[in-house]
Amino acid sequence: MARPSESPKDDILRLPLTTVLDLLIAILTARGFTRSRAWRCAYTFTENSLVGGPSHGLNRFPRFVEWIDRERIDVDAHPSRLDSHGAFERWDGKLGPGPVNAARAMHRAMRIALRYGIGCVALSNTNHWLRAGSYVARAAEKGFLAVCTTNTEPNLAAWGTDEACVGNNPIALSVPRTDGHHVVFDGALSQFSYGSLERAARRGETLPVPGGFNESGDPTTNPAEILRSQRALPIGYWKGSALSLLLDLFVSGLADGRSTREIGQLDAEHGVCQLFVAFAPFLLTPHAIATLEQTLANYPTRYPGQRAHRAREENRARGVPVDATVWSTIHTL
Amino acid sequence: MARPSESPKDDILRLPLTTVLDLLIAILTARGFTRSRAWRCAYTFTENSLVGGPSHGLNRFPRFVEWIDRERIDVDAHPSRLDSHGAFERWDGKLGPGPVNAARAMHRAMRIALRYGIGCVALSNTNHWLRAGSYVARAAEKGFLAVCTTNTEPNLAAWGTDEACVGNNPIALSVPRTDGHHVVFDGALSQFSYGSLERAARRGETLPVPGGFNESGDPTTNPAEILRSQRALPIGYWKGSALSLLLDLFVSGLADGRSTREIGQLDAEHGVCQLFVAFAPFLLTPHAIATLEQTLANYPTRYPGQRAHRAREENRARGVPVDATVWSTIHTL
Repeated sequence: MARPSESPKDDILRLPLTTVLDLLIAILTARGFTRSRAWRCAYTFTENSLVGGPSHGLNRFPRFVEWIDRERIDVDAHPSRLDSHGAFERWDGKLGPGPVNAARAMHRAMRIALRYGIGCVALSNTNHWLRAGSYVARAAEKGFLAVCTTNTEPNLAAWGTDEACVGNNPIALSVPRTDGHHVVFDGALSQFSYGSLERAARRGETLPVPGGFNESGDPTTNPAEILRSQRALPIGYWKGSALSLLLDLFVSGLADGRSTREIGQLDAEHGVCQLFVAFAPFLLTPHAIATLEQTLANYPTRYPGQRAHRAREENRARGVPVDATVWSTIHTL
Repeated sequence: MARPSESPKDDILRLPLTTVLDLLIAILTARGFTRSRAWRCAYTFTENSLVGGPSHGLNRFPRFVEWIDRERIDVDAHPSRLDSHGAFERWDGKLGPGPVNAARAMHRAMRIALRYGIGCVALSNTNHWLRAGSYVARAAEKGFLAVCTTNTEPNLAAWGTDEACVGNNPIALSVPRTDGHHVVFDGALSQFSYGSLERAARRGETLPVPGGFNESGDPTTNPAEILRSQRALPIGYWKGSALSLLLDLFVSGLADGRSTREIGQLDAEHGVCQLFVAFAPFLLTPHAIATLEQTLANYPTRYPGQRAHRAREENRARGVPVDATVWSTIHTL
């Protein structure tokens, strides 16, 4: 049973990093982005493709632009602080671009952590951040341990029911290492994303473990059946379902923003809540760092984030991988 | 597919709360506990049986006493603060009783949160806290949102290997409600605990979903086979395995204490690390509380913690449920 690969076997171009960034930045500045905010977004999309997550990378860029054009994303919005209680702050994302808001919020949590050891920012009214792992990875680059999570539209049935009322609430955690090979966990609470189910169905693959229910309500490893029923499984069955509810209550409660239920009442997923927690680099003693390295040295398989490091190195050398169809579409934007 | 019940169908006595507490307190004070610390431990064991978790309640009390007698638990130890960085503090549990140390640490995190919005205590050198949920539930009683997690001995294979090198790292989250019916998630990262596998095997039951591997390395719903292979499954397969590594790096790193690997090198599980995070009650606005109640009012099934509330009410009325054999054993201590 191998973990399914996300790297597409389709028609993949290899492009220089600057070629990709330049086009994306041009598309965004033409829509009113400042150059620095355009760069932040372009870089996040491109980086996600570099580390092997095209579904949250360049594949998603046309949808991002569509949402700007439909005014679901406010190009000019800057997040603003609503409330400060020392180590905890509440911010309003004002429906601005998700990657800009999330980077700002994580950066702010890090600043707070430098003062109080731990820093927490709860962000409401924001948009899809693409890939949770990219924000904690950037915190790790600066030596911070970090956690972030987001709520989503309802896309998983509460365990024991067929009512999609909890979200797959991606969560990411990072632990920094001095050699730059940070440990990064990034996972949604669904066993498989709908993106990976679609890819597996397109290729006629069977899932390595049950990923949802078929239309008769039985667990299945057939991705096409799950796409028809729209009933993907949470990780750990009842456990993931319960954890998802709690994460939604936490992020929407602390951010004072939309719950998964309320997001589901909109015409499309936006205006979500996110939570960012950073722990200051000085909290890790030399002894703790040595212990951490001992754990990793004895870990018998890839550590979380290792595949992304390798993909980034390989793709930096070979060029940014972009699906040929996606690249054509981006050219039309 | 029903979630398996933990309530034993064996020979169960129903005892008045004071009868149980008095005996446990007498046993502990005879071993040098002060009355207040004896009460804290006795209450934690009894409460866990009251809410329907006997394996982390009275069933475990004889082992707790054995560990005191073998001097793995230091009756007189008081946790002490090693380090303070504002909203983050590091404490040394000095191998004292787990339930006393954990209650102290959660209480301290709450005190810090009142000052800084969020409070975090990392605790090293502590012992088994019994049930993660009891500490966050107490925080919820005071109006705090709370999270706690612990590392453990290595008891799960890292995904893709047969090497038990990650722990099942229980994690608990709570969200307070004004009516006292707090939402409490309490789950380990294994799909089933070894306790519940043993119970299911004893009763000849089949698990509702695969809970581990048999000795040929195939997933199985037969609990006896999993007990033989000692290869229980993490929740979400590769996801739970990765998350478990990250949680161990977080708690042992921030507490500057023993890693799962180091705990596995001891003669038995003790001296673990735990992390406690509390969010102050004043962070929840009236709007956020209303949103939260709306989510719960529309939740189509039991919310996490609801079964424990009902069990507590029922058992308060009917008497503390205690396995007859366990109760005889406790009398011999």
